[in-house]
Amino acid sequence: MAAELTAHQLIAQHRPTLDQALEAIRTRAYWSPHPEHPKAYGEGDSLDAAAGKAAFDALLNTRLDLGQPGTDDWTGAEVSPYGIELGITYPHADIDVLLPAMRAGQKAWRDAGAETRAVVCLEILKRISDRTHEFAHAVMHTSGQAFMMAFQAGGPHAQDRGLEAVAYAYVEQIRTPDTAEWTKPQGKRDPLALTKTYLPVPRGTALVIGCNTFPTWNGYPGLFASLATGNAVLVKPHPRAVLPLALTVQVARQVLAEAGFDPNLVALAAERPGEGIAKTLAVRPEIRIIDYTGSTAFGDWLETNARQAQVYTEKAGVNTVIVESTDNYKGMLSNLAFSLSLYSGQMCTTPQNLLIPRDGITTDEGPKSYDEVVADLARSVGGLLGDDARANALLGAIVNPDVKARLEAAAGLGEVALASREITNPEFPGAVVRTPVIVKLDGAKPDAEAAYMSECFGPVAFAVAVDSAADAVELLRRTIRDKGAMTVGAYTASEEVEQAVEEACLEECAQLSLNLTGGVYVNQTAAFSDFHGSGGNPAANSALCDGAFVANRFRVVEVRREA
Amino acid sequence: MAAELTAHQLIAQHRPTLDQALEAIRTRAYWSPHPEHPKAYGEGDSLDAAAGKAAFDALLNTRLDLGQPGTDDWTGAEVSPYGIELGITYPHADIDVLLPAMRAGQKAWRDAGAETRAVVCLEILKRISDRTHEFAHAVMHTSGQAFMMAFQAGGPHAQDRGLEAVAYAYVEQIRTPDTAEWTKPQGKRDPLALTKTYLPVPRGTALVIGCNTFPTWNGYPGLFASLATGNAVLVKPHPRAVLPLALTVQVARQVLAEAGFDPNLVALAAERPGEGIAKTLAVRPEIRIIDYTGSTAFGDWLETNARQAQVYTEKAGVNTVIVESTDNYKGMLSNLAFSLSLYSGQMCTTPQNLLIPRDGITTDEGPKSYDEVVADLARSVGGLLGDDARANALLGAIVNPDVKARLEAAAGLGEVALASREITNPEFPGAVVRTPVIVKLDGAKPDAEAAYMSECFGPVAFAVAVDSAADAVELLRRTIRDKGAMTVGAYTASEEVEQAVEEACLEECAQLSLNLTGGVYVNQTAAFSDFHGSGGNPAANSALCDGAFVANRFRVVEVRREA
Repeated sequence: MAAELTAHQLIAQHRPTLDQALEAIRTRAYWSPHPEHPKAYGEGDSLDAAAGKAAFDALLNTRLDLGQPGTDDWTGAEVSPYGIELGITYPHADIDVLLPAMRAGQKAWRDAGAETRAVVCLEILKRISDRTHEFAHAVMHTSGQAFMMAFQAGGPHAQDRGLEAVAYAYVEQIRTPDTAEWTKPQGKRDPLALTKTYLPVPRGTALVIGCNTFPTWNGYPGLFASLATGNAVLVKPHPRAVLPLALTVQVARQVLAEAGFDPNLVALAAERPGEGIAKTLAVRPEIRIIDYTGSTAFGDWLETNARQAQVYTEKAGVNTVIVESTDNYKGMLSNLAFSLSLYSGQMCTTPQNLLIPRDGITTDEGPKSYDEVVADLARSVGGLLGDDARANALLGAIVNPDVKARLEAAAGLGEVALASREITNPEFPGAVVRTPVIVKLDGAKPDAEAAYMSECFGPVAFAVAVDSAADAVELLRRTIRDKGAMTVGAYTASEEVEQAVEEACLEECAQLSLNLTGGVYVNQTAAFSDFHGSGGNPAANSALCDGAFVANRFRVVEVRREA
Repeated sequence: MAAELTAHQLIAQHRPTLDQALEAIRTRAYWSPHPEHPKAYGEGDSLDAAAGKAAFDALLNTRLDLGQPGTDDWTGAEVSPYGIELGITYPHADIDVLLPAMRAGQKAWRDAGAETRAVVCLEILKRISDRTHEFAHAVMHTSGQAFMMAFQAGGPHAQDRGLEAVAYAYVEQIRTPDTAEWTKPQGKRDPLALTKTYLPVPRGTALVIGCNTFPTWNGYPGLFASLATGNAVLVKPHPRAVLPLALTVQVARQVLAEAGFDPNLVALAAERPGEGIAKTLAVRPEIRIIDYTGSTAFGDWLETNARQAQVYTEKAGVNTVIVESTDNYKGMLSNLAFSLSLYSGQMCTTPQNLLIPRDGITTDEGPKSYDEVVADLARSVGGLLGDDARANALLGAIVNPDVKARLEAAAGLGEVALASREITNPEFPGAVVRTPVIVKLDGAKPDAEAAYMSECFGPVAFAVAVDSAADAVELLRRTIRDKGAMTVGAYTASEEVEQAVEEACLEECAQLSLNLTGGVYVNQTAAFSDFHGSGGNPAANSALCDGAFVANRFRVVEVRREA
């Protein structure tokens, strides 16, 4: 059967986008082919908001049959953080059938070459992009993100990160030519001459272990990096966030089949409640690559036990912002307030510890005591979230009961500068919506250290009083070294302090945002320009995205013959 | 104090070489800046053969003081495989002093940037190249390689591999620009604008664990890859092959100091007999990268236990040559005879198992039975090594008593087709020189399988009778998968068999040489063009050299500010 989509067509269609992505990762200037605004996705047609909502609604209470081999059952028990039972079931796989079936198409996928694989990946991303409104609802009702964030972070931003991984994977594979003529002079004798061919070969089957909060954004880089380098990819979603990745797998399988490849190159491994199949899958000999986002405990387990695989982990960290001085006090407060509030602090990049000198800071509005800074920040957060409609649009819903429990416990850790407030979501009365708590801690006190030196994932910020800027930098270093950090922020008008913070981040290997007072926040990174994580501190062993993230997902096999 | 060598001077001097290396790894055509012929190194001047020999002789029975901090003792007990006691002692380090001292210069080395680090590395290689004659004797009298091989493999070829690693490291680091201006349109509002800086930062201190047989060739890739990416490098040589790496460290320290950097960025960790410091060093928190060549047992130990480090290993494998048919029978025999003889088979790339159909093969000289092929090969090896002078020049010396014991035991494993012969080296009567043994084994017999499915490092080849070409390919697959392989060779005039062998190598990830009958041998790889190992089978977890070998030796730290 001829493929409906030829490589030629796909190259003609997507090569310009690939080239732009390659240029973007080289210059790291702003670029994205995926619009952020919901209205950019058509109006009155199949891509628009109403169609996306209808498509999502039509999925509820259905069986999502992906046509996978080895499906022995159907499973699914997603309940939206907004209170809706999704009622969708997914194929449950007999992995002794599914994993071998995933090998069948690997040779053809390998032999297709890097460029064809890249444009097939781009076609998958294009079709996902066309369904961004539908995916937005799927991400919203699994992660608890507010709609606009689910739309942007779960849609275009996730697609950008997938495309970025494809671009890195492509360029890595073409660093070695397909063939070479090697001729070595031998003085007066005939030269030695060899003809050499080089082929990127996949490692085998890759496993993506998805997370609850950012199923697409954190899932796409590994998925597309592995697929673009010739591997089959098995996607094991978080049991509370299956739908966005199941839809992704569905699209990938459709595109692969239409392009003449085996759809089983991408498959879903949904699990029954409490089944814990990630541990089983992770040590299967077929699994040669693992991408994981989640807890430090399981990430460490994977790194220790899945020795047959390349393991890429994003685990937990403790993110710090140093508040030493500023020449834009208002801008700083509003920027920080937004960072703490967005998605109820349920981002791996949300600041947790705000280190503030106990003797206060200097600002463009004069000196401010530690208490004043904390009170002003609390007021700023309170103001930002004072209107319930805006609060709902910014906070989203608490993703699970553990986060709610941590939030409630945090109030007991110190003096509460800003109490968490319960907000009603009129559209979704079942949603648990909470504003952040800000707790004052004395950095010098050991019991306080126990609190601020652990990750408290959720809408909890600690205003940690420190002795001095130098003390803050030292605590920053120790926090990154011992606990890891996905992000570091600092506010300072002092060149000396700025240099000290920068040096700490260079030595401890953490990504630094300095003096953000406008519309860019420490917890946001942009594909093609910003690195997400550093891969050099305990929070993550890889960064999104760089050469190291893709270079070991394939190997190059050389065949040489006499010319 | 001003540096004697400025970055500007070094860039002017070495940038053209770096650019040529970058072009070579891109085209993979033949290239080397390091001459192979001993006479190319001057005549009558300080670089020539006599000067090199004199320099080596002057080292004997001396203390090689590298000026390292934390030297608490002197150690060294190298005995040349040619029978000479070198009598050289090296600094023994108190690692609690040395390791911290190696951190002192890391910031300046990091801030120097990728280009300056690359040209400093090239200056180190240039000075090593100038002393190639001296290094040749050092390699010869530690590895047991014959002089010409020690000269070429230990000199220019090793320097090529070092330069190749520098080129890969350099290009990897400049994939991300130093700075970027990022401007994101916001419709009618002002765009978001950030200024971003990106700096490659080292992981910390790297450990190179050297091997006995190829101290420079196997040591330089990791050493230069780590140094060029900003790390300090501690070199732990094999206790029987200290001198070549000690001289390397000496040169590196001199160049670093002259270029204004801390010489302690490169240091030597020589050990007392039986001290086994590799295990201690490998798990030190300061050690963040390990490059290792040696036994599978210790390589696996490192991969399992040195969890704080990136670990690059080249371990043992079982190399196979399939002999199915040929249209150049004489060429095949002489090519194989040379491959089996070179350095007494003491190369990780030497073929061990020759798979030959028990019903014989077709050749340009008519059909040949299994027995005929083996007898002809034995005759070919016998002829090649019939002259003692030539045998000595080709075989070198047996590197250690374990190899000799394995060789002697091998004769008991099956029918001996070619017995090992003892050869006297008139210049070095203490040298243990042996020709290879060829043992016939029936591939279908379980006791034979126990022999041929283990690595028998040294001058031992097994002529394994197999049922068919398909049987050979299946055994090849199993051998690579279970035991690993640094090299695979095949002789076949059948397109079908060639494709089957090629597919096996692509799927099991091994480097293949097809129908070599001239002056290129399966056990030799050329830097800038051939990959040494694949990194995708159990023999090695990395290849020399590719992006994956360098990409994770540094991380990129981004600092972003509002523009």
